Amino acid sequence: MCTLEKRGDLFFLTLTGEDEHRFHPDTIDSVLSLLEQAKSESTKGSVLITTGHGKFFSNGFDLAWAQSAGSGAIERMHQMVKSFKPVIAALLDLPMPTIAALNGHAAASGLIFALSHDYVFMRKDRGVLYMSEVDIGLPVPDYMSALVVAKVGTSIARRELLLSGKKLRGEEAVALGIVDSAAQDSAEGVVEVSVSLGESLAAKKWSGEVYASIRKSLYPELCRMLNLTANNLATHNV
Amino acid sequence: MCTLEKRGDLFFLTLTGEDEHRFHPDTIDSVLSLLEQAKSESTKGSVLITTGHGKFFSNGFDLAWAQSAGSGAIERMHQMVKSFKPVIAALLDLPMPTIAALNGHAAASGLIFALSHDYVFMRKDRGVLYMSEVDIGLPVPDYMSALVVAKVGTSIARRELLLSGKKLRGEEAVALGIVDSAAQDSAEGVVEVSVSLGESLAAKKWSGEVYASIRKSLYPELCRMLNLTANNLATHNV
Amino acid sequence: MCTLEKRGDLFFLTLTGEDEHRFHPDTIDSVLSLLEQAKSESTKGSVLITTGHGKFFSNGFDLAWAQSAGSGAIERMHQMVKSFKPVIAALLDLPMPTIAALNGHAAASGLIFALSHDYVFMRKDRGVLYMSEVDIGLPVPDYMSALVVAKVGTSIARRELLLSGKKLRGEEAVALGIVDSAAQDSAEGVVEVSVSLGESLAAKKWSGEVYASIRKSLYPELCRMLNLTANNLATHNV
Repeated sequence: MCTLEKRGDLFFLTLTGEDEHRFHPDTIDSVLSLLEQAKSESTKGSVLITTGHGKFFSNGFDLAWAQSAGSGAIERMHQMVKSFKPVIAALLDLPMPTIAALNGHAAASGLIFALSHDYVFMRKDRGVLYMSEVDIGLPVPDYMSALVVAKVGTSIARRELLLSGKKLRGEEAVALGIVDSAAQDSAEGVVEVSVSLGESLAAKKWSGEVYASIRKSLYPELCRMLNLTANNLATHNV
Repeated sequence: MCTLEKRGDLFFLTLTGEDEHRFHPDTIDSVLSLLEQAKSESTKGSVLITTGHGKFFSNGFDLAWAQSAGSGAIERMHQMVKSFKPVIAALLDLPMPTIAALNGHAAASGLIFALSHDYVFMRKDRGVLYMSEVDIGLPVPDYMSALVVAKVGTSIARRELLLSGKKLRGEEAVALGIVDSAAQDSAEGVVEVSVSLGESLAAKKWSGEVYASIRKSLYPELCRMLNLTANNLATHNV
Repeated sequence: MCTLEKRGDLFFLTLTGEDEHRFHPDTIDSVLSLLEQAKSESTKGSVLITTGHGKFFSNGFDLAWAQSAGSGAIERMHQMVKSFKPVIAALLDLPMPTIAALNGHAAASGLIFALSHDYVFMRKDRGVLYMSEVDIGLPVPDYMSALVVAKVGTSIARRELLLSGKKLRGEEAVALGIVDSAAQDSAEGVVEVSVSLGESLAAKKWSGEVYASIRKSLYPELCRMLNLTANNLATHNV
């Protein structure tokens, strides 16, 4: 389902298996638990790299599991939406730089999970970003919209992402300012550039607490929604 | 003054006549009424295209009408500012994609009206965007500033639009990320590309209610100001 | 330390001397006092150009002065953070266009001071932007983060500025949308383009009060934090 490995300063959070890496409640619990473990084991210089096996980074919530409940489907959707919120909060609060190395497709909450990292790398040869909600007629949870507003700079790019039903390839996502680059022709290549960046960031030996504090200060509305405080020099109370 | 036509899935809202299409209270009432009609007649696949006849898309409020009131001019300005706010709210709340096909100049509240659409197309050969307030010494109403903040991604582009007194031509507006494109050499050309986009969006047969919900979730501060709620999956209350 | 000169319509605020132009409490008081003087002497057509002598525009707070207090260092830091806030507020509230002509390096609060101007010009040949906080393990004061969120359009550019420890050269800062241009090969050149822009803005003979009102309306969250009101046409109370 997912694993956490530590190699030197780098934590590797990996969505394992050749499936779509759908976020079932058990997967969500597991990811949250591993992020808490990374936090508790973090030291100066720690960096998180998140990636996946196979064709998909993650295709989002486990809709099939929700639908299998029949009349209880909506309740199951709400359960996943609610339990996924602390995962996003944990990434925004993690005391280290975070890098998403997209091995393949990232859709819906799988894409939101990717965008919650500080850096996002896509492949050049395959993999798309896709917010499917407008196509399947589902509203977008408030904190996911807030994440997109916080992370995607322009109104045109937000519309292309959430209101077009488009499947954005790497070079389109780079042009829209949604991801950092899409220059590699394989999953291994994306992990390599992520490791290379990760090692250069690790060498800074930054204070993770200060890093997280500055990160959170850049997303005030999102952090309010996630119940995170920036712990920075708040002059309102000085 | 203005008309609403339905051709297949596409609604055409047209500012008619060869004048500047100034927003007089009667025009504002008429536009609002036609937007409400489009909403009430909307079905899955509906799309709105707004355009105008002649040289101007719209040059903004009917300042001559306000000034003709002598000492009552300020009251008339406030009346127009207040009655125009529901027009912007109606566009943000409309349950279908919206496209502004700018036949010509768009200034002040005429420009704000244009930017309230999901897509904005300009002509290459003529037509400018112009926020005249700084030149004529009028403050910008709060919801219009909020619209610019919501729709224009960079501080430099907002400054060029509101604090420079510049008349921005199509290619400048595209470069600043304010409009989508300015590749057509005639009003007919701009309408053609709008119809082409409109038909491809109509073919999606999206739920208009979900579309509007996602759109509103992308502009939280603006929607608060316009008293619109996103009706999305609000996890604050889950 | 710093001076204010008026030549025609242009006010020149200059950080004098060949040192790093660190913001000591006395410097902060002096800058604030000169900005208040410019405001009180402003007329239609006034423009402010801020620049410095020597290699540095400003390297930020006087950390050496804070550290020399031993156990009182944190209190001195808080004192500077608090007393600098009205300087940023004064720039956002100044009833005239403002231009920062960066003669050289701008770091930490020196960079925040630069970004608080409407226009920022860098040199092509030398000078970097550098937010040192992540490197030296200091959190960023809330109003400085808010200024960066308000002025820097994209999440990627904000990360490069605050979370990378990079020293951004002129062309990188232009590419990230942080400054307007970096085309001049000398401090004199940067001042020349600033004067040229300043004179063209002065020729507009705008109302400074309206100009400041529109500027503030573009930064609602920052202005709330700085206790500034926009005084624009607030339709909430109409």
